[in-house]
Parts: sequence; structure tokens; C-alpha cells
Amino acid sequence: MKVGELGEFGLIESLRRIIERAGVGVGLRREGILGIGDDAAAWRAGKRTQLGTTDTLVEGIHFTRETASWRDLGWKSLAVNLSDIAAMGGDPAVALVSLSLPAETDAACVEALYEGMAECALAFRTAILGGNVSEAPLIVITVSLVGEVEEGRMLTRSAAKPGDAIAVTGYLGASAAGLRMLKERLDLAPDVGSSLRMAHLRPSPRVVEGVWMARHGVRAAIDISDGLLADLGHVCRASAVGAQIRLADVPVHPAARRAFGDRSLEMALSGGEDYELLFTAPLPVIERARQDISVPVTIVGSITGETERIVLVDESGKEVRRGRGGWEHFGGWKA
Amino acid sequence: MKVGELGEFGLIESLRRIIERAGVGVGLRREGILGIGDDAAAWRAGKRTQLGTTDTLVEGIHFTRETASWRDLGWKSLAVNLSDIAAMGGDPAVALVSLSLPAETDAACVEALYEGMAECALAFRTAILGGNVSEAPLIVITVSLVGEVEEGRMLTRSAAKPGDAIAVTGYLGASAAGLRMLKERLDLAPDVGSSLRMAHLRPSPRVVEGVWMARHGVRAAIDISDGLLADLGHVCRASAVGAQIRLADVPVHPAARRAFGDRSLEMALSGGEDYELLFTAPLPVIERARQDISVPVTIVGSITGETERIVLVDESGKEVRRGRGGWEHFGGWKA
Repeated sequence: MKVGELGEFGLIESLRRIIERAGVGVGLRREGILGIGDDAAAWRAGKRTQLGTTDTLVEGIHFTRETASWRDLGWKSLAVNLSDIAAMGGDPAVALVSLSLPAETDAACVEALYEGMAECALAFRTAILGGNVSEAPLIVITVSLVGEVEEGRMLTRSAAKPGDAIAVTGYLGASAAGLRMLKERLDLAPDVGSSLRMAHLRPSPRVVEGVWMARHGVRAAIDISDGLLADLGHVCRASAVGAQIRLADVPVHPAARRAFGDRSLEMALSGGEDYELLFTAPLPVIERARQDISVPVTIVGSITGETERIVLVDESGKEVRRGRGGWEHFGGWKA
Repeated sequence: MKVGELGEFGLIESLRRIIERAGVGVGLRREGILGIGDDAAAWRAGKRTQLGTTDTLVEGIHFTRETASWRDLGWKSLAVNLSDIAAMGGDPAVALVSLSLPAETDAACVEALYEGMAECALAFRTAILGGNVSEAPLIVITVSLVGEVEEGRMLTRSAAKPGDAIAVTGYLGASAAGLRMLKERLDLAPDVGSSLRMAHLRPSPRVVEGVWMARHGVRAAIDISDGLLADLGHVCRASAVGAQIRLADVPVHPAARRAFGDRSLEMALSGGEDYELLFTAPLPVIERARQDISVPVTIVGSITGETERIVLVDESGKEVRRGRGGWEHFGGWKA
């Protein structure tokens, strides 16, 4: 079978099984805490819990030189990794950068890439301590990031419990709207355009917010990279729970709504690359988050006991489902 | 200027300057110990010193599907990173794997890749705890590895001192000889062919040996990835010292010598990808290493005070230099 048919998650599951069967997964040494399947890996170093994650941007797949500047690309390549550490409640520490480039690349472009990366590193107090450069026929940027979290306070995908409220930080859909704008070269109002562009090219990982959550009783979180529904699906699978989402409460980004009207709801639900945090906790914890966290925190639904079943409801509590013409009543959405 | 003109080391130096100027290098936080410029980065986590390194194999640049099997590729992609941790005297702990692949890749091939990687992980007691997979028009494998070393015992490129003896583990030149054999499809005696093939495709990182060195008073080391002379050059630059190498003492791999005769010396000096350790220490320390370490340890020369000057000498102590016909008398070789 081709990996394209198997799909990303099928492939990861098959690789995870090879690792576990060979005995080199989380059980190999006393250090192992969390292996393949969450936003980041976790292991012990003395009394500290270390977190590690890695992410790759490939030219032509994740970006093109037409829609992203080198500087933006530098920012984003680090930001997507910071978002994974944030989703574990971790404090980022050290980044390593592996850069593959055509020999004819202008050195000034690579320097701009690093300046963007350094800007993001400074904003989130992450040291860039190493990496390597090599030749390749196209640009591939892999950033690996190590962070720390206090023992026992780590946020995971598998800790959601029936009765928890589900909340998200910030607004959703602007990154997908921004990508569409850039690809289709849409001419939008300057403030709308700039805000969608920033959302797509310069996402703000919720590092401070993740650390707050880890310290104040949140236990389940994921970053929204695949899209609200897909990432909620990951949480439901890992936690063996279900979820109910009130569509009217999903915080669609105002700029996405202004640019794309009703179509922006779909972008907020499934667009992805928002790099906001989705988290679940008892209501009082989330109420406190709404007071303490400086970005908006919106409750969008609740965790249920119906394993892996995600139900979308309208304002009156009636189930709706995805149909040809948008969202229709009746039915559920299987994670 | 194009990065091809600037070269790998010129580019790294320019990127290092951007990082330091932006204040996100080793000085950013109390954790930083060692940034860009050694085999691995180093930082503190509590009382522990963490080491981190990353390396990428790109299809068509570092390997082709004709000369390397998927399983070998898996072994090698982890082994080259283990070698960097070994060169710091570190104990490997956790690997993260970022894999970019064409959608039409056979899943069985990717599984074989992971089996080879798992085999290497088991041999060197390294947990594979995470990573990511993404689409790309060609295969790019980036492995990042985190390890640990006891505080203050780390091996660095910058600790060589005039008067130190220079030694290497194992034999050199077999990887370059193996690559040549595979590329040119040379038909060698089976034992020679198999030994060169293994040296190129399944290098044995000197992890146990590096840990021994860190614990027994060695302070300067590098792994031989660019070639004995080039890597010694890195040590001389970082330590502001020079070196004298006795050509007759360079441990050319017997299989390389059998296959390529006198040309094997050049492979041992400049071929690279041997993944042996070059280290420097006072003679008694190296004598003890020769007794305690199970792979051969050969003294090949000594560190001098002549900054960045590497001199090659023949058996009678006369200087030789690279000439058209091989190694000729007179002159030196500038690092």
C-alpha cells in the first residue's frame, strides 16, 4: 500500500507499532513518559520532565516562495513547534534547526529566514543552539524543540473527562482564510487582509497560556493545527470520550467572517493552522482561565461519555450535520 | 552570494552571527552552555547537562535508493546523530524523527526504514518517542537526538591543548571506499566488499567509547564525519592550536587498503563518514584508553602550539604535503 493511501495517521500508527514491538518506545528506559501520539514526547531528566517535538516545512507542500517571505517562513517554522510545546503546558528551552537548501539559494534569503526565526525565538524566550545545513533540490526546514514542564502537570490529549467544558483560546479560521486570500490573490480591505495574512504567516503560539493551564488545573489540551473538529477528534480518541460542540459559540475570527461571510464557519471548524489551544477542564477552572489569560477564552461545548462521537448542535440544542449546503440538522460527526 | 559559493561552514558562521546578534544564542537563558559550532548543543536541565543534535539525509544528496536499502537508511539516519552525542561524551536518551516522503512511497519501505532505525536504537539504548511525517517530492529524513552528560565532563572541540596526543578509535577510510564501491559497482572479494558496505551503510557510533572518555579525563573530541584532516581542522580552529600527524600511523581500514591499495590513505585522511572519534589528551590518558576501550585506539600525532597549522610528517619526521602524485615532502597543510 502507498503511504498516500494509508494516510498520515495510518502511517504514524504503523510506525508506532514497529517502535513498540522493537522495544525502543516509551518503555525502553526509566526516562520514558510519553511516546508517539501526543503533541510532544515527554521523558524524565532527573526530577524534570522534558518535552520534545519536531516539525518540518517542505517547499511546495507547506509553503511556496510566492506566498511566504523568507522572514515569515523563519517565524512560522519555529512557531509551529512552540505551539506543540504550549499544548503540553511546557516552557520552551532549546531549538535545533535542520535546513536543506539548493546550492543556488541566495545567502541573504537564508539570513532573512534566520532573522524571522530569531525574532520568534526572542518573543518566546527560546535559545537556538544548533542544527545543520545541507544541500537539497528544494527547501526543507525542520525545527526540533525541547522544553520542560513541572512533573505531573503536563497537558495531554488523553486526559479529557466527561463533564469537562471544552474551550479554545483566541479566534479560529483566520489562517485558512489567509491562505485562501494569498493563493487566490484576493483584494481585501487592508485591515482585513493584513490580519488574515498575519494569522497565516505569523501565528502566535499560546506558550504563556499553556503554562498557565498546566499550573492551574487544566490537564487536557491540543493545539489546533489540523482544525478544531479534527483536533477535537484526536482528543476524543486519546481520551475515549465524545464531545458536543455548539456551532454558534465557535469563535470565528472577525476578519475571516468579514472576508468570507458564512463560509468562515467552515474555516474555523476545519481550516487548521490556527495554532490556538483547545483544552478541556471543569467549568470553574475555565472560568478562572477566562479571567487570568489575556487572550480571549471561549467555551464551545462539553465532553461527553459517548466514545469518539462528536455532535454539533445549533443554538436550540438540535443536532446539525455537514451537508451539501453547509450545516444541516440531524446526525452526528464521527471523529 | 549563493549558499553554494559561501559553503557549509561560511553559511553556518553567518547564521550563528544572526542568532547571537538577536540575543537568542547560548546567552539567552541560564540554561545555555554550548551553542552552534560543536558536535552537539548543550544546556542545563536542573543539575543535568542535556545535549542535542540534529542531522538530515536527503535523497540524491546523501543517499540514493540504488545504493542504500531502506533498512540501512534507517540505521544510518540514527547512527550519524548518535555519533554526534558520542563525540560530546554523552549518553543518548531520546530521538525524534521527521520524515518527508512522496505520497506514492510504498508503506512497506517506510516500515523497513523504521525497522532499521529501531535496530540501531536498541543497540544503543535510545528511545524513539516522536516525530512527524509529511509529504514531499523526495525523501528527507531528519533525526534529532537528545542525550545527557555529567556536568563538567563534556567533550568539546575547543579543549585540545599543546602537548596532547591525538588518537582515533577504529579504522578509517572504509566508508569512503564503500561508497566508491557501491557507486562504481566494483566487484570486490566478498569479505572485503561486505566489510566496506557495512562501514558505509551501517556505521557504529562510538557511544560507549565517548562515555568512557568523558569519565576518564579526555576533554577534546570530534566525530570523524568530514574526514580526519577536516575534522582535526575543526578541533584546531576551535582550540586555537595546531597539530602534527604521522601519516604512517594513520589506521587505514584493512579492507579499504586491500581494495584500493595506496589510494586508501587519501580515503582515510579525507574520505569522511567514518563516524570514529578523534580525541586528544595527555599520553597516559590515551594509554589507559587503549587498555580499557574494546575498539582499537591509535595514536596518530600530537597537538602543537602553532595555531591552525596542521603538519603531516613521514616516518622519519620529515614534512610531507599533498601533491599531484600523492603525498610529497615539504610544506604544511593549512586547516
